[in-house]
Amino acid sequence: MVGKSIPRVDAYEKVTGRAKFTDDLILNRALVAKVLHSTIGNGIVTSIDTSEAEALPGVVKVVTFKDVPDHCYPTPGHPWSVEPAHQDIADRNILTGRIRYYGDDIAAVVAEDEVTASRALKLIKVEYEEYPVEIHPRKSMYGSNPPIHFDKKDNVLARSNFFIGNVDEGLEQSDTVVKRSYKTSIVQHCHIENPISFAYMEKGRIVVVTSTQIPHIVRRVIGQALGIPWGRVRVIKPYIGGGFGNKQDVLYEPLNAFLTTQVGGRPVKLEVSREETFCNTRTRHSIEYDLTAGVDKEGHLLAKDMKAYSSQGAYASHGHAIAANGLTAWRLQYACPNTRGEAYTIYTNTPTAGAMRAYGIPQAAFAIECLMDDVAAEIHTDPLEFRRKNLIQGYYEDAYLKPIAANTNGIFQCLEKGAEYIHWDEKRKEYADQTGSVRRGIGMSLFSYKTGVWPISLEIAGARLSMNQDGSVQLQIGATEIGQGADTVFSQMAAETLHMDVENVHIVTVQDTDVTPFDTGAYASRQSFVTGTAVKQCAEQLLQKILDYAKTLLPEQETRELSLDHGWIYAGEEQVLSLEALAQEAYYSLSNSSVLTAEVSTQVKKNTIATGCCFAEVEVDMKLGTIQILNIINVHDSGKLLNPQLAQMQVHGGMSMGMGYGLSEQLVLDEKTGRPLNGNLLDYKLMTALDTPDIKADFVELDDPMGPYGNKALGEPPAIPGAPAIRNAVLHATGVAFNEIPLAPQRLIEGFKKAGLI
Amino acid sequence: MVGKSIPRVDAYEKVTGRAKFTDDLILNRALVAKVLHSTIGNGIVTSIDTSEAEALPGVVKVVTFKDVPDHCYPTPGHPWSVEPAHQDIADRNILTGRIRYYGDDIAAVVAEDEVTASRALKLIKVEYEEYPVEIHPRKSMYGSNPPIHFDKKDNVLARSNFFIGNVDEGLEQSDTVVKRSYKTSIVQHCHIENPISFAYMEKGRIVVVTSTQIPHIVRRVIGQALGIPWGRVRVIKPYIGGGFGNKQDVLYEPLNAFLTTQVGGRPVKLEVSREETFCNTRTRHSIEYDLTAGVDKEGHLLAKDMKAYSSQGAYASHGHAIAANGLTAWRLQYACPNTRGEAYTIYTNTPTAGAMRAYGIPQAAFAIECLMDDVAAEIHTDPLEFRRKNLIQGYYEDAYLKPIAANTNGIFQCLEKGAEYIHWDEKRKEYADQTGSVRRGIGMSLFSYKTGVWPISLEIAGARLSMNQDGSVQLQIGATEIGQGADTVFSQMAAETLHMDVENVHIVTVQDTDVTPFDTGAYASRQSFVTGTAVKQCAEQLLQKILDYAKTLLPEQETRELSLDHGWIYAGEEQVLSLEALAQEAYYSLSNSSVLTAEVSTQVKKNTIATGCCFAEVEVDMKLGTIQILNIINVHDSGKLLNPQLAQMQVHGGMSMGMGYGLSEQLVLDEKTGRPLNGNLLDYKLMTALDTPDIKADFVELDDPMGPYGNKALGEPPAIPGAPAIRNAVLHATGVAFNEIPLAPQRLIEGFKKAGLI
Repeated sequence: MVGKSIPRVDAYEKVTGRAKFTDDLILNRALVAKVLHSTIGNGIVTSIDTSEAEALPGVVKVVTFKDVPDHCYPTPGHPWSVEPAHQDIADRNILTGRIRYYGDDIAAVVAEDEVTASRALKLIKVEYEEYPVEIHPRKSMYGSNPPIHFDKKDNVLARSNFFIGNVDEGLEQSDTVVKRSYKTSIVQHCHIENPISFAYMEKGRIVVVTSTQIPHIVRRVIGQALGIPWGRVRVIKPYIGGGFGNKQDVLYEPLNAFLTTQVGGRPVKLEVSREETFCNTRTRHSIEYDLTAGVDKEGHLLAKDMKAYSSQGAYASHGHAIAANGLTAWRLQYACPNTRGEAYTIYTNTPTAGAMRAYGIPQAAFAIECLMDDVAAEIHTDPLEFRRKNLIQGYYEDAYLKPIAANTNGIFQCLEKGAEYIHWDEKRKEYADQTGSVRRGIGMSLFSYKTGVWPISLEIAGARLSMNQDGSVQLQIGATEIGQGADTVFSQMAAETLHMDVENVHIVTVQDTDVTPFDTGAYASRQSFVTGTAVKQCAEQLLQKILDYAKTLLPEQETRELSLDHGWIYAGEEQVLSLEALAQEAYYSLSNSSVLTAEVSTQVKKNTIATGCCFAEVEVDMKLGTIQILNIINVHDSGKLLNPQLAQMQVHGGMSMGMGYGLSEQLVLDEKTGRPLNGNLLDYKLMTALDTPDIKADFVELDDPMGPYGNKALGEPPAIPGAPAIRNAVLHATGVAFNEIPLAPQRLIEGFKKAGLI
Repeated sequence: MVGKSIPRVDAYEKVTGRAKFTDDLILNRALVAKVLHSTIGNGIVTSIDTSEAEALPGVVKVVTFKDVPDHCYPTPGHPWSVEPAHQDIADRNILTGRIRYYGDDIAAVVAEDEVTASRALKLIKVEYEEYPVEIHPRKSMYGSNPPIHFDKKDNVLARSNFFIGNVDEGLEQSDTVVKRSYKTSIVQHCHIENPISFAYMEKGRIVVVTSTQIPHIVRRVIGQALGIPWGRVRVIKPYIGGGFGNKQDVLYEPLNAFLTTQVGGRPVKLEVSREETFCNTRTRHSIEYDLTAGVDKEGHLLAKDMKAYSSQGAYASHGHAIAANGLTAWRLQYACPNTRGEAYTIYTNTPTAGAMRAYGIPQAAFAIECLMDDVAAEIHTDPLEFRRKNLIQGYYEDAYLKPIAANTNGIFQCLEKGAEYIHWDEKRKEYADQTGSVRRGIGMSLFSYKTGVWPISLEIAGARLSMNQDGSVQLQIGATEIGQGADTVFSQMAAETLHMDVENVHIVTVQDTDVTPFDTGAYASRQSFVTGTAVKQCAEQLLQKILDYAKTLLPEQETRELSLDHGWIYAGEEQVLSLEALAQEAYYSLSNSSVLTAEVSTQVKKNTIATGCCFAEVEVDMKLGTIQILNIINVHDSGKLLNPQLAQMQVHGGMSMGMGYGLSEQLVLDEKTGRPLNGNLLDYKLMTALDTPDIKADFVELDDPMGPYGNKALGEPPAIPGAPAIRNAVLHATGVAFNEIPLAPQRLIEGFKKAGLI
């Protein structure tokens, strides 16, 4: 069953519109909540007057920052830690009077309907004392008065560094040293379904139904935010319309939970608009890099150095974990005796940055892979050849975090497939000496990506199976289907280990913290690896129970080994009992009934590295400032594919995101206020179907020994290599090295003008 | 925690209207289904024309008996059996063209709204061929042409008998022999919430949300009715507004499930009206008894003989189990060397009889306890004295089904309490010689009642516990809260065994066959006994896991015995670790995390007998034909009370039902057609608050060794002894022995006239 391209188990529900999302589940007569956002980017609220809003008919309740519980809480979707030093930074309250970015949450209105709630917002009168706004991390790190948070006078949320060998000596010994700066922009996830939740109370507890990737973590954070025992919170996660990491953060659920307590437990709906999603949820961190690399005469890397400045925005959220992830990647994959890294994560008066698909690696890989091409150009070497020379073959492990290791390493095979598809050797030559304003080029980039978060953080997953009377099974997991196909591959896994058809595995789609096994949720490409391990263990446990029970039903003299295969118990080669008959006995036997179930809660202390690359062929119209992608391919080394067709679709989606990252997407902020200037789907240039060329996905399937079914990370990686590959193709086409994305027309034209090409 | 009168865990939800019942959960845009019922009582449909109905705008689908799957299925809420001989009788189809009672289900309409569905019903044209209608079992058992079902020419669904000793010899040896016939009427459950369900499809499976006592059984029966694997059915049971056994039958859920498959899986709501509830769901069996008893000179029973004729109505439903239960009761409690019983269950052209609170025993106890008074009167003995002389003291067991035993027997203590409350000795004398048309009397009756269904049928229950991060626990069970307080006592049980406050036990109220442990459901007063055993085992298992895990967190040299008490782990007498800290480690330890959970699926092979009695004082106005109850008490021997206040409320409710059974309730059928003449709450005389006197409940608490917490049956028994106690009080007051209930004015006046008293 594993390895087959079966249709998604939720395909029919989703294409027929029958799948129930959060909004579909809201019962009539739910109240509607809306949030009042600040209209300054830094400062304090000096006065707030809600009396007119409260007087509006249909308004049920108005709360301000003065009314909320005084419990700072952390929001990132990380497993909690019992050690305070490893706990996430708690720097946010449900509402605030200390404004840290344009749009900060000051107050909320609960009304009988949406129109009334919107009108009431406008009736709230707020006065501010304003402070200067700082949106650039490299300036913010020199401090502000007052600091953005706590007593952090330098606004530096965190700094970390590492060194291997002696970088300074290595650079001295180098034949060629290349120094460059790179910068990535703020982008937003743009999942189809905006964040939405509704909350109500039952039996003295708070229930929140929400579009989240991490229901069990949302439960915990609501408990922390409200200062109530976590067991008094119940979180339900229906089908969700994408998340891409934005919903790996706890967003407005604590406010929603608080609001229902303020209206006697009545149901309250809190739907975040698209504009709020851009400004008031999370973004991908903009990170600025200063990179240096030294190579010897043969083109071998002798030393490399990274300095990263990550703009956190107004609140900690996932914080330094993003930039730190890039530091880790800087240590991996390329052989280099002397490597150093240093990263800063810095508060700024901008929308809060959080998790987004591939968690800091699209930024780091953009910088690293641009640098590799820039070094290759400097020493007049083919950039693919240069990489092949410097990449580690076979097994390697991280120097600092040893479980992070390439237990299989298919990067060379990936490069081969990619180069062949794009006709690397021919076209590098063909496009060498172009003239005119329209030119073509090919470029590539590669990456490595760890699969789970161990040993940086905890990995734990739960699974439960119980056998129905017809021999089919119910599979229940705490991990979440967020559009990536998790439910499908978990069903395949259970079917594989139980040797049954996947139609006989009924997976429970909704996660409900009251009844769902504990799992930290969908992030880090962890689920098929970590939860997959739990599913496999659980299925093995159930299989053993089935065979043990079969023994009690067979004659005592039966000594042949028992096995299960597609609905039949075999003794040796002989069919001796149908699984359905066995199940019926388990349910209904007068002598020996006991329904067969299995449950595991599995800590997974392993990790493994996936790799891959992108090859792109572009045509650049320098006068128009446009890039047309003629051909593009991602080749992934993600271990054994659980479902090749789903894998293809994952890669397609990630490539689209990578192309948008490289070509057009950027949340533009006003310099003076930090206000998003294009926080809507009209002005924010997301890739559409019409913008997207034919895209090609290919794979190198090595059987990874760490993965429960030979699999490793695939969910996030496809989004990584597109942007640097396109940038490198533009470099090939035009000779101009753009060091900042997106490669939008204005930037291109400026660059080509500067280079004297137009 | 067990034994305390804590408030119901659902009290706040229910009194504030916040608890969600089936109708509250129906999403907008559900289609509405209505059923077309026959307007004859016996016959066949010769033609049916749905064309006009189908043409009505808003009608989505019309189905008739010709369209439904050809799978006969059984409906009673019994656990299934893998042995065909023990399986329930499958004599019903989803719709039928062979009409067996007035109101039989011929066709169904699915429309966009209720009004359209109702209008469409009227547009369906049906023609019948009619057969004579037989509503009396003692006539029907001589057969009809055609038979009501199968080739059962005598219409006898089943017959069973037993004998102990030699009854004929015993009667011959008796000094006095009394022969009487008794009859009980058809009554209906009259739960507050009518049966209601809605069904839809998801992922190729059918989901039915329904107001039922037995979700797991509904799942199975839908599978049988539609001929699909049972795993493809999901049944969800929200809060329900009473059931009393009517919802221990599978009612319209198979039709509802079928209808959604006919409209592409769209949600279809099927709400049963009150009038349909009376006619088309289930009733309590009317049973006719011929009883004989012989006593010696000292008033000891020497022999007793029962013949019972139970009117099944049109379909088998719970069938002969009801009459057979009365046969079992006939063997118990009274010492008698020669006892014989024979029972017939006979199809008639009447509404189908099924399970109702106390399952055949209110009927049998009415007959038996009337007989006891009639024998006592015949031999001029005080009826209480007569019973005391003939009741078994202490332990006894059923001769045929040995696990059914009085492991504790508090009947003598019950009688003492009852007699004292009603001032038995004084008032028997005081009311001895009355004249005039208004007279007073006191009467009593008693009963025995088994707690579960073992060994007649399977007893199996499941429970699951998992510990939250704050040390509280989630308790999930397949047993159902149907208003009786099950959720509250299960929470108390878990708290008791886990030594924690009940507020830290969060019970999951909704049963969902996809995720809920398997349990056969709410019936037979089984849950606190059978499911209680599972809850106790599950809690013991979790407790052991908690203590085992605590060991891993404590110093190795800690050798004192560990225990858990109210949130703390103790080593010996010393508090060494809070449960919350332990729970957090279990969730988040980097070295050793594994969420602590426990699950059991427990077959319970034990049973135990509860007893009790009722004493009533009445004033009879013979001219008006009215009975006023002046005082009434039930005294119950139900083992240790789990929650005394809930126990009181159970008894109050049961006594109300018993009084209605004795005084006013009866579903009257038209002799010619079998049509109910008073199937609505206006004409069917249910006890109202104004009709109900002050009622008193008392208990004898013996610690039963079979009950998980010393408890035994309490849910159903309170409904048993009221009717015969009132009848016997009337006998005391007036000397007139009424042998048929209800004692409604017409019957009373006729009786008193016949006796020459008015």
